[in-house]
Amino acid sequence: MSEPTIITVAITGSLPKKANNPAVPITVTEQVESTHEAFEAGASLAHCHVRNDDESPSSDPEKFARLLEGLRKHCPGMIVQFSTGGRSGSGRERGGMLSLKPDMASLSTGSVNFPTRVYENYPDLVDWLAEEMLRYGVKPEIEAFDLSMIFKAAEMAKDGRIAGPLHVQFVMGVKNAMPVDRESFDFFVRTLKRLAPDATFTGAGIGRHQATLVEWSLAAGGHCRT
Amino acid sequence: MSEPTIITVAITGSLPKKANNPAVPITVTEQVESTHEAFEAGASLAHCHVRNDDESPSSDPEKFARLLEGLRKHCPGMIVQFSTGGRSGSGRERGGMLSLKPDMASLSTGSVNFPTRVYENYPDLVDWLAEEMLRYGVKPEIEAFDLSMIFKAAEMAKDGRIAGPLHVQFVMGVKNAMPVDRESFDFFVRTLKRLAPDATFTGAGIGRHQATLVEWSLAAGGHCRT
Ligand SMILES: [Zn+2]
Ligand SMILES: [Zn+2]
Ligand SMILES: [Zn+2]
Ligand SMILES: [Zn+2]
Repeated sequence: MSEPTIITVAITGSLPKKANNPAVPITVTEQVESTHEAFEAGASLAHCHVRNDDESPSSDPEKFARLLEGLRKHCPGMIVQFSTGGRSGSGRERGGMLSLKPDMASLSTGSVNFPTRVYENYPDLVDWLAEEMLRYGVKPEIEAFDLSMIFKAAEMAKDGRIAGPLHVQFVMGVKNAMPVDRESFDFFVRTLKRLAPDATFTGAGIGRHQATLVEWSLAAGGHCRT
Repeated sequence: MSEPTIITVAITGSLPKKANNPAVPITVTEQVESTHEAFEAGASLAHCHVRNDDESPSSDPEKFARLLEGLRKHCPGMIVQFSTGGRSGSGRERGGMLSLKPDMASLSTGSVNFPTRVYENYPDLVDWLAEEMLRYGVKPEIEAFDLSMIFKAAEMAKDGRIAGPLHVQFVMGVKNAMPVDRESFDFFVRTLKRLAPDATFTGAGIGRHQATLVEWSLAAGGHCRT
């Protein structure tokens, strides 16, 4: 592929707290500064969660608004991607900030088991989040935790519920969802290319698996994420 | 494979009602007679749901007990498999009848989207259902609605939470879960054989897809289901 590789920085995530890792940026100001450093080091996409003051995950649109404003100012040209992941609220709360028009937002196109719970993305919510992204011109990054989510995303791109070309992130290494498995990764890539030939993709591994997924993703012509 | 092919009859299912199809057996007596007919026609395994008097899905152990007793009497030697599927109750209610010691019971090793809802099998419930099956000597039929469920089942067989050899049913054609896709089916078979070489498998398609899945399953050395 001749297009440039995109290096992503995932700031904060939805789980680690300062007690576990004092370097985790929690406030919006900390997040902007931490992203700025990654931006200067070459990262071109910021995957963003926000937190409440007690460090618990939040989906407060006001926090997302301040984060977006800070990133636009400190990291000009950086692609800003908001997480619509399930830790930060229930149901449509998870998409309440899409009207802020970030460049991208994550979209899981199905449900799967996580280490201790069900990661619920019920069909109506998936459709509604996709509608909001269409309405506000936000490009989805499909978070594919399993094979059926790739099929679902391709179906939605085909019938216009998602604006093409698809961009899919294959997530491996989450306990009870997909393990880190090379043959499955290659099958995911093959299946995506078969269903949506113009799609782009990347791989994400959890924790210690990240380097492995970056390597597989680059070898298969995908982007990477740090 | 030299072992005999198993023909399954799925009586009643969890959804159709008499208003949709007057031939659907609802009462335990109707279910026993309908299964008896299939048994005489060559079916060797009965996959069983039970219903309340208003035809809604039930997980009442007393109904399962009468069904098991009727099948043992009218269909000697037939393999009786109870469904632990999610329509019939919430949480552990779904496994309340495992102490009756049917030959087999269904076990979904993960969660996935269904047409209008999340089919929830949260991690603790999967573990508990598997424990009950081990305790009462019930052989699980893994209902694999997606790839990660095959990995999860293989992991559970490896660490002893499921007694081997694994038996897995690949389910395709449920909207929002896996579509009917030959390359995915073949990859499921390959993956299962790689992770658990002694495993057996079958394919199940929903409604009009059933014949397709039976054909693929037999071609790949699996069992079939009617
Ligand atoms: Zn995230
Ligand atoms: Zn700065
Ligand atoms: Zn069933
Ligand atoms: Zn009879």
